[in-house]
Amino acid sequence: MRRAIELASRGLGSTSPNPVVGCVITDPTGAVVGEGWHQRAGGPHAEVHALRAAGEAARGATAYVTLEPCNHTGRTGPCAQALIDAGIARVVYAVSDPNPQASGGGATLRVAGIATEAGLLADEAEQGNAAWLTSVRLGRPHVTWKYAATLDGRSAAEDGSSRWITSAESRADVHRLRAEADAVLVGGGTLRTDDPHLAVRGIEGATQPLRVALDTRAGLFPTARILDDAGPTLIVTGEDADTRHLPGVDVLRLPLRDGRLPVALLLTELYARGVRSVLLEGGPALAGAFLEAGAVDRVIGYIAPALLGAGPAALAGAGITNIAHAVRLEITEAVRSGTDLRITAVPANAPKEH
Amino acid sequence: MRRAIELASRGLGSTSPNPVVGCVITDPTGAVVGEGWHQRAGGPHAEVHALRAAGEAARGATAYVTLEPCNHTGRTGPCAQALIDAGIARVVYAVSDPNPQASGGGATLRVAGIATEAGLLADEAEQGNAAWLTSVRLGRPHVTWKYAATLDGRSAAEDGSSRWITSAESRADVHRLRAEADAVLVGGGTLRTDDPHLAVRGIEGATQPLRVALDTRAGLFPTARILDDAGPTLIVTGEDADTRHLPGVDVLRLPLRDGRLPVALLLTELYARGVRSVLLEGGPALAGAFLEAGAVDRVIGYIAPALLGAGPAALAGAGITNIAHAVRLEITEAVRSGTDLRITAVPANAPKEH
Repeated sequence: MRRAIELASRGLGSTSPNPVVGCVITDPTGAVVGEGWHQRAGGPHAEVHALRAAGEAARGATAYVTLEPCNHTGRTGPCAQALIDAGIARVVYAVSDPNPQASGGGATLRVAGIATEAGLLADEAEQGNAAWLTSVRLGRPHVTWKYAATLDGRSAAEDGSSRWITSAESRADVHRLRAEADAVLVGGGTLRTDDPHLAVRGIEGATQPLRVALDTRAGLFPTARILDDAGPTLIVTGEDADTRHLPGVDVLRLPLRDGRLPVALLLTELYARGVRSVLLEGGPALAGAFLEAGAVDRVIGYIAPALLGAGPAALAGAGITNIAHAVRLEITEAVRSGTDLRITAVPANAPKEH
Repeated sequence: MRRAIELASRGLGSTSPNPVVGCVITDPTGAVVGEGWHQRAGGPHAEVHALRAAGEAARGATAYVTLEPCNHTGRTGPCAQALIDAGIARVVYAVSDPNPQASGGGATLRVAGIATEAGLLADEAEQGNAAWLTSVRLGRPHVTWKYAATLDGRSAAEDGSSRWITSAESRADVHRLRAEADAVLVGGGTLRTDDPHLAVRGIEGATQPLRVALDTRAGLFPTARILDDAGPTLIVTGEDADTRHLPGVDVLRLPLRDGRLPVALLLTELYARGVRSVLLEGGPALAGAFLEAGAVDRVIGYIAPALLGAGPAALAGAGITNIAHAVRLEITEAVRSGTDLRITAVPANAPKEH
């Protein structure tokens, strides 16, 4: 199952709106006879890849799958039936499918007389699918807020300079985060100040995420780097924004609330477009708005061993004034990233798999 | 030697102005026949403790010492001579003594025909004595700046509330840091706002550090908690401060520079009083002044997995405006501390043993 989870992770960033899934088939001696993972939405599911690899060896074999095999016919046939047809004797899956459209695969297998077990390495498998499971549960994309800061919490110096606070390894790691996300999001401040590109660089075969910029008044120049053809782009503006200078640009118009784009509505719209995971890349006000809306599911901080003593913080305006109302998180990982430390945290009250 | 280093660390906080030293004596079969460590200034050195424990078994034995045995007679006799007199056949020490008054012990041993080796586990042993070695080298105490902050770099909420940002484990750990330091230092802002006590609590047998408060105008109330009898206290004021309301209080007067107490002069005065290590406990302006003076040798940050989005940072006013002038550090340790993360860092250009 551990191998299946590893295989599943290879699909991160290219399977939405589907989950990532991995499958390993072993013969009665325990030898691996087939492997597969779901590579992209619309393509074969993990089980089908693994069954193809196993061929005749699938007969009487055991299939380890990270997620309950699906039971419905979408763009591809139901995997439960494919496993039955191939003569698989036993199916072990880690996590039950929470998606009402697709669930029931376990029951179908059992009815067909196949020994079926659920729950093996469920925590690990859920973690690998955290974004998708969150999005199914909440009906909005899973949101990761990523920031970089010095040890004393500054994301730039007093004069605004920030190249480079973090190490080359950390900056490369951000491209991995982008590649794993369906969409990358920045606010108007970052858009104007940094003219960000937001495409994935340096990762072979990566699926480019949707680049989303919140730009209330559509102040964006047509020459902005985010509008190039490196990947798809979506500009989100207020209802009445004048976008005549942006012909051919995909624009989403939302009603403003107190002059700001409403976070919840934005996420619902992105979900409707198939986005299951969002990487929030800045700046402080955007992160504050998402935090205030309760829409941050994971925080990844790149902490550089440097001190500035002045300059903006990574987060602002979350509406918190007293320590009693601090947003409490739980650190799930702290590892070196070049000379920096990468800290991952999730809301303290979040379900286990986040 | 590893055992000797471990023994040495037991003396942290109570040996100044002496270093911490550990000693293990083994007989020709490798069996430990004596152990000792320097427990407090004026008391027997580590070698003497270990020789006493070994008794006759010291004859023909090997002594492992974390620091070159001293060669001079201070409050106690020279250890090199004691090792010779006891019939020790071989001495292995980790670090050479940089103190010109005490060095030469290695040469004395060799002249007496004792096999002598230096350098075993030198890095580890130097790290254990980092404060003392720094103070000997620079003629000022070793300074550790300790802070607590949220993931977004806030050391208090917008309204000033900060109880408690960090976990109980982290707050207990600060008492360990205090116990290991000769002096604990706070600035006037912290003094007025927090009325800190600064004594060590919860550590049996701990030596109370000198509690030092910078109080330019001696605005301190005679009822301040720092003035109680839990430990010694030193109030540092400007030359002309009126301290008539503080009878019996130990006051150090220093000339002000731009209205502020000069860091370098303060450290020189503390060194003259036997202080070899200082724990800087806040607030942001004090830390900034020390950083600007190049007088921070170690940073220990307790990072709580919480987000505030507003509130003061742990560090302010270090005189840095551009990212190119950021103080670059190196992370030497990052470990869990309760629910928090404790990050230790030293200046990136610091000598190895820091």
